[in-house]
Amino acid sequence: MAQKPSIPKGTRDFSPIEMAKRNYIFNTIKDVFGLYGFQQIETPAMENLSTLMGKYGEEGDKLLFKILNSGDYLKDAPAELMEQRDSLHLTNKISEKGLRYDLTVPFARFVVQHRNDLSMPFKRYQVQPVWRADRPQRGRYREFYQCDADIVGSDSLFNEIELVSMIDEVFKRFGVNIAIKLNNRKILSGVAEIIGAPDKIVDITVAIDKMDKIGIDNVNAELREKGLGDDAVAALQPLLTLTGTNEEKMEVLRQLLSSSEEGMKGIEEMQFVLDGVAALGLKSIVELDVSLARGLNYYTGTILEVKALDVEMGSITGGGRYDNLTGVFGMPGLSGVGISFGADRIFDVLNTLDLYPADTTASARVLFINFGNREAVESLKRIKELRASGISAELYPDAAKMKKQMAYANDRKVPFVAIIGENEIANNTVTLKDMATGEQQSLTTAQLIEALR
Amino acid sequence: MAQKPSIPKGTRDFSPIEMAKRNYIFNTIKDVFGLYGFQQIETPAMENLSTLMGKYGEEGDKLLFKILNSGDYLKDAPAELMEQRDSLHLTNKISEKGLRYDLTVPFARFVVQHRNDLSMPFKRYQVQPVWRADRPQRGRYREFYQCDADIVGSDSLFNEIELVSMIDEVFKRFGVNIAIKLNNRKILSGVAEIIGAPDKIVDITVAIDKMDKIGIDNVNAELREKGLGDDAVAALQPLLTLTGTNEEKMEVLRQLLSSSEEGMKGIEEMQFVLDGVAALGLKSIVELDVSLARGLNYYTGTILEVKALDVEMGSITGGGRYDNLTGVFGMPGLSGVGISFGADRIFDVLNTLDLYPADTTASARVLFINFGNREAVESLKRIKELRASGISAELYPDAAKMKKQMAYANDRKVPFVAIIGENEIANNTVTLKDMATGEQQSLTTAQLIEALR
Repeated sequence: MAQKPSIPKGTRDFSPIEMAKRNYIFNTIKDVFGLYGFQQIETPAMENLSTLMGKYGEEGDKLLFKILNSGDYLKDAPAELMEQRDSLHLTNKISEKGLRYDLTVPFARFVVQHRNDLSMPFKRYQVQPVWRADRPQRGRYREFYQCDADIVGSDSLFNEIELVSMIDEVFKRFGVNIAIKLNNRKILSGVAEIIGAPDKIVDITVAIDKMDKIGIDNVNAELREKGLGDDAVAALQPLLTLTGTNEEKMEVLRQLLSSSEEGMKGIEEMQFVLDGVAALGLKSIVELDVSLARGLNYYTGTILEVKALDVEMGSITGGGRYDNLTGVFGMPGLSGVGISFGADRIFDVLNTLDLYPADTTASARVLFINFGNREAVESLKRIKELRASGISAELYPDAAKMKKQMAYANDRKVPFVAIIGENEIANNTVTLKDMATGEQQSLTTAQLIEALR
Repeated sequence: MAQKPSIPKGTRDFSPIEMAKRNYIFNTIKDVFGLYGFQQIETPAMENLSTLMGKYGEEGDKLLFKILNSGDYLKDAPAELMEQRDSLHLTNKISEKGLRYDLTVPFARFVVQHRNDLSMPFKRYQVQPVWRADRPQRGRYREFYQCDADIVGSDSLFNEIELVSMIDEVFKRFGVNIAIKLNNRKILSGVAEIIGAPDKIVDITVAIDKMDKIGIDNVNAELREKGLGDDAVAALQPLLTLTGTNEEKMEVLRQLLSSSEEGMKGIEEMQFVLDGVAALGLKSIVELDVSLARGLNYYTGTILEVKALDVEMGSITGGGRYDNLTGVFGMPGLSGVGISFGADRIFDVLNTLDLYPADTTASARVLFINFGNREAVESLKRIKELRASGISAELYPDAAKMKKQMAYANDRKVPFVAIIGENEIANNTVTLKDMATGEQQSLTTAQLIEALR
């Protein structure tokens, strides 16, 4: 086989240094999840197609990776479908399993399946890959990680406050300045109610979002094009020109929505969350943004999204409150609220801003040069002591030429090289070379441990 | 949908406490891999079937989970295969990708694909799930993790010494007493050469393995049944009755194999590894075992296997040296040596012996009881300080009845409950209850941090 092997398009190999950076991201997020009392679960990569199908719309069904049944999968395939080459309908005759498309549906399935073992509220986090047969493009992969945290079984808005605080903590640790944008589905519903156009929520949020780019006149024209009457457009003006502090925006919304029960409920929820996070004193900007409309067919209360301030990039975290997570699996009435960190985009942000800690490395701290069997065994004894002190260390396995061993040290970006030759054995010392400065020191083992720690 | 949802057979959900235990296992192994200078990589769950097929034998090909092509996968399917319902041959017309079956083939593919970016020797580790369409049974799953470490591009036997030392360190950390059994493929080849029966290696190792159970007379009878002549059986007697220390066994082997160049090479390699690990002083028993014959169609030098001493269980770690890892991908001559920790069996061993550290828990360290909005906000302020000190803490999100909140604390096995009510707000204190003893203390925030640390 002369052809160089490859991997499926849209998938990636991760090199040691990429893994070190990704581990930094995942471990930071997991540490914070743990500090906030979220519990980790994992679910299988494969789910039954009966669990997955119909949960992501028709388009989503097509984007599921489906696993061919084992054995003679054509045995019971209906003759008609075979003759007509009806790929679409044959699929569920020859495939029973698929790769998970997100972490939400498997989580809902998990909650229902293990309902008798779970005490509510259940705070779970999950960090696992998902797979989508999307057209691959820059920044969009067919295998990527999601980092989700959800609280189900509690309507309390303290959950929202905790999630916003948790987002703040994660990005504080990353050193990324962010704005956490908040909206509430009930506020949007109230707006639609006020102007008598409940089916126009999306058009309205899209229009608000364009204000900065195209100006109020063009936005108004667009709204009329979408079928809004003059009264409705007039009623929307305060929303389109909404500026200032969160307090100022809330005041305008309070007047605008005063006649909508649903809208006022949204205002009340928003105020509670804003007050709560203000009391805690976050580092991040927290900003009411009525143009935020993610997951409108899903979210029923708070909607949130995170933007990095110092780099051009789409949303890097998002989430919201939903009703009825598990209804589709026969367990109605379970509401919750959750967020999802976009690990791949965060990876891109940290790469762009070069925000990894200085010790994000894939290499050992010290490489021992190999001068032959006797010296190598002496080296391994020192290495054993270093490792016992938590210092990663390795021996070059072959007594190769010095130049080759030093090239390896360079390639691996090992910060220190240690030498045990005849003299060092005689004096019971180690020569330590700092690869950055070139400086050499003759040390006892105890001093070596101290120097490398 | 009234039916309770389920997961595909042979797969598992992992609950929070199971995840805490599994993380302890994976993190211990990864920490040791890192201390020894191994670098982590990850490869995609899906590989091209051209990468996977033919690498695991005919049976292995059948056990690969294959992914149905996206879109109209039947469009170009040959009419003949469709009419004959030839599942076997249709597969590679409708499926191009499969789930990885192990970590070794993807690693070989990785090395060849990225050869220009890798400096040799390359020490990599990889901890990821693999999938096999095996018949599920007790202890055998269709999705399970492998934890592999390999060094490629070096023939040095110091690599073997390092791997044995690494195994010792991992199980020392787990508190599991083990025997590390060593053999060498060249010793077995030498034995076969001596008795003139190169095709009987497996029969011989199986016979040696049965000595304890059925005794020497039955073993000899079995060897004759397998077609060995009287001379061959006579020549094998020293091997069948091999006992004593490693030194004593080596002495017998040295005499037995003196006329076999290959055999003596194996003896020399074995002696080097035994001397090396003796010089380092391992905790584990290291034992020469000529009946060890794992991966005979694959390993070319050292073969090793680990048995837990205090629990009935198959091999919990295994490995060996191989030539030509990457030849099948057009890069011949790359040899290496590697080991694989069996995470699922180690999980079973630690469960059986109850060897998890006392702090292996999925719960927060303290739960704050929720008495209402004012108290909850005060609680969140304290919780923020605790988290800043690295103490995991959570607020019960709803002002539910005390009984319900305490039941939650019990279910979650939270070790402490904190109370901030009217009195505590007035006195700026927190009441801390130890859930195990029932003891209560009134503390300042600083004292609280001290008590929970």
